[in-house]
Amino acid sequence: MSLPMQRVTLITLGVADMERARGFYEGWGWRRHPASMDGLSLYQLHGQALALFSRGELAADQGRPGAELGTGAMTLAQNCGSEAEADAVFDSAIKAGGTVLKRLERAFWGGYSGYLADPDGHVWEIAFNPGWPLDADGNLTLPAP
Amino acid sequence: MSLPMQRVTLITLGVADMERARGFYEGWGWRRHPASMDGLSLYQLHGQALALFSRGELAADQGRPGAELGTGAMTLAQNCGSEAEADAVFDSAIKAGGTVLKRLERAFWGGYSGYLADPDGHVWEIAFNPGWPLDADGNLTLPAP
Repeated sequence: MSLPMQRVTLITLGVADMERARGFYEGWGWRRHPASMDGLSLYQLHGQALALFSRGELAADQGRPGAELGTGAMTLAQNCGSEAEADAVFDSAIKAGGTVLKRLERAFWGGYSGYLADPDGHVWEIAFNPGWPLDADGNLTLPAP
Repeated sequence: MSLPMQRVTLITLGVADMERARGFYEGWGWRRHPASMDGLSLYQLHGQALALFSRGELAADQGRPGAELGTGAMTLAQNCGSEAEADAVFDSAIKAGGTVLKRLERAFWGGYSGYLADPDGHVWEIAFNPGWPLDADGNLTLPAP
């Protein structure tokens, strides 16, 4: 057993209002996994899952009940296959109730990127990076420099 | 083109001190990808990458320079193949400079879980969930309920 593997199997987002949070992600086109429960909404990603969970319960589960948990310093990104696809993904998130932080624009690093927040302030970057290849399933493998 | 796919291609952690943050993740056994640059440390995960990036630059990139970005409400988890493996992964993170939030303990949902924070306050859960199968590479596929 070689430890640890560089991987993330579950991303948990603490949310203030489960119905609102589900409404955003499912309005964005995500499909809730049937293993979801009343207080836990699960979404299958590529080799990992994303969970929506009450923010208060998440703080308690972390061993610090009552703590004010913050957002923004950890960003999730979807890299897309083209500028047009990035525009479409971004627009679909805003239509679903996301808040624009920064509209998509050309970036100094040669790509195209914008940021939005979900209803709980969790930050998503939507980007197209011509130097970062995606496979047909949208998996990213970093290129040799 | 069906939009959007349920996936995360990049997880970015905003850090106050790049050397300290690299020291934690590489002390935990992670290998920096050669595409990394001075202000951007990249790690290849399964079908996605994790980046360490200056917290101030991340706020500016999000279109809100000077904003205080918070942590804790988004948790990354590593699910392990056994309680012993979860113990070993947790201990290796603490030895690398992580802070214990909650030591591993049996959970009401039938598994075994603990939480730690990296030097910038980003929260990791280390867990063993006997109901969540992992493949040989450590990828998670949610089970049918």
